[in-house]
Amino acid sequence: MNRDAIGVFDSGLGGLTAVKALNELLPNENIIFFGDTARVPYGTRSRQTILRYTKEDIAFLRRHPVKMIIAACGTVSSMLGAELPVKDMPFTGVVYPAAEKAAEVTENGRIGVIGTPATIRSGSYETALHSVNPHLDVTAMACPLLVHLVEYGYTNRNNQITRLAAEEYLTPIRKAGVDVLIMGCTHYPIIREIIADIMGDGVKLLSAGEEAAQYAKICLEQQDLLTDSTEAGHNIYYVSDSVSSFRDNAKNFLPDAEYGQVFSSRI
Amino acid sequence: MNRDAIGVFDSGLGGLTAVKALNELLPNENIIFFGDTARVPYGTRSRQTILRYTKEDIAFLRRHPVKMIIAACGTVSSMLGAELPVKDMPFTGVVYPAAEKAAEVTENGRIGVIGTPATIRSGSYETALHSVNPHLDVTAMACPLLVHLVEYGYTNRNNQITRLAAEEYLTPIRKAGVDVLIMGCTHYPIIREIIADIMGDGVKLLSAGEEAAQYAKICLEQQDLLTDSTEAGHNIYYVSDSVSSFRDNAKNFLPDAEYGQVFSSRI
Repeated sequence: MNRDAIGVFDSGLGGLTAVKALNELLPNENIIFFGDTARVPYGTRSRQTILRYTKEDIAFLRRHPVKMIIAACGTVSSMLGAELPVKDMPFTGVVYPAAEKAAEVTENGRIGVIGTPATIRSGSYETALHSVNPHLDVTAMACPLLVHLVEYGYTNRNNQITRLAAEEYLTPIRKAGVDVLIMGCTHYPIIREIIADIMGDGVKLLSAGEEAAQYAKICLEQQDLLTDSTEAGHNIYYVSDSVSSFRDNAKNFLPDAEYGQVFSSRI
Repeated sequence: MNRDAIGVFDSGLGGLTAVKALNELLPNENIIFFGDTARVPYGTRSRQTILRYTKEDIAFLRRHPVKMIIAACGTVSSMLGAELPVKDMPFTGVVYPAAEKAAEVTENGRIGVIGTPATIRSGSYETALHSVNPHLDVTAMACPLLVHLVEYGYTNRNNQITRLAAEEYLTPIRKAGVDVLIMGCTHYPIIREIIADIMGDGVKLLSAGEEAAQYAKICLEQQDLLTDSTEAGHNIYYVSDSVSSFRDNAKNFLPDAEYGQVFSSRI
């Protein structure tokens, strides 16, 4: 048993989708979230720059009392691959949990993946999927605009620009006949309805952030690190840009969430 | 006379439009360009973060032999306003040169401005325009997506997504009956044709980067700082992310330019 917090970080605010899932799965746990809003997005930068930022993000979380770290960012998880950047406590990215779930639920063995340019260029999801089942057929597509469309609140189901962009990115995946689509960047669940409309009823959508939250729960259970508190846990949010820009943008992500303690911190 | 280079910086690669104009106006001058590609974009961040990055960008250029500094970035120029961050050599942003030109060429006194959210929120162009002529009528619009659409190469005149986004942003400005539109971010001239199609023939488009280059020429002439070299000047490019990502993206900006010396440098 351990009452320390679960540390969660993301390049921006997409990781809030993982925080939401953690709050639902583990309501008594405290969460410390860090969003690198002064340097978002990561997904269009080079591998070495993303790895440098990742190191700084993890160092920031480690200065707080955390018992596990989750990289709630598809891009960071993809750059890390199977590497564990933290050895003395549990760590997970979003790629392996999502790949395991996808391999489990697919019926026809054809899986689609969408992510940032860095994620797709890395081939991370293919590697993870093939480590579970080498016969899976994977169709992956980089979607550079979607992160921005979400960050700027172009998220209404009928938004024409977002629909047009999503259709362009998703059409080759739909044509490949996949029955599972991994939303490989934690921003994408915010436009889940648009993605579902384009992919059609027969395709199951997996949120990489939610799968990472599920995995974190199992991991903490197995290592006996869950809290014994019976009170509701609380979330503390840190961002590298201003608190007011967090408050402006966070409502585009989870309009119903309440953001109590939010701090700005240079890293 | 002075053979040092002209230092030019931008949050990303939009400032290359100013470099191009400088090369045409002052072909014998050397240029040192810095693009903060590891942290682009600036225009959706807070004022204090943008000012911190600006200070670091200027400090980087000052470590090189430069005789003038140009902030070829609408967002940076807007955060600085009338403040001069460099006292011992000429300095200009893009806001005042563009505002002076707009005030000069308008016939009906109605001027449109497009820029990043930080630029428009600051009211920088209105302030600059009204300092020249308090009776000008200004219609300003934040265009958060356009920087990304340009950076990712959605720049073809017939690109549906860019046309749709631009139409949404520009319609209120067209309806206001402006006869001059300031493209207040150095990315926008790359999609000048799309902007012109939407605004129509009667509207003159001003490129903030080109106006800054014109201003820089006058400034160097007046202070007797132009080079006496009669050979073609050369450009050196520095970026904070990788050289390969510069090479990938720069072709979206100026497809015909040759980028000889490009270096990656952490700042």
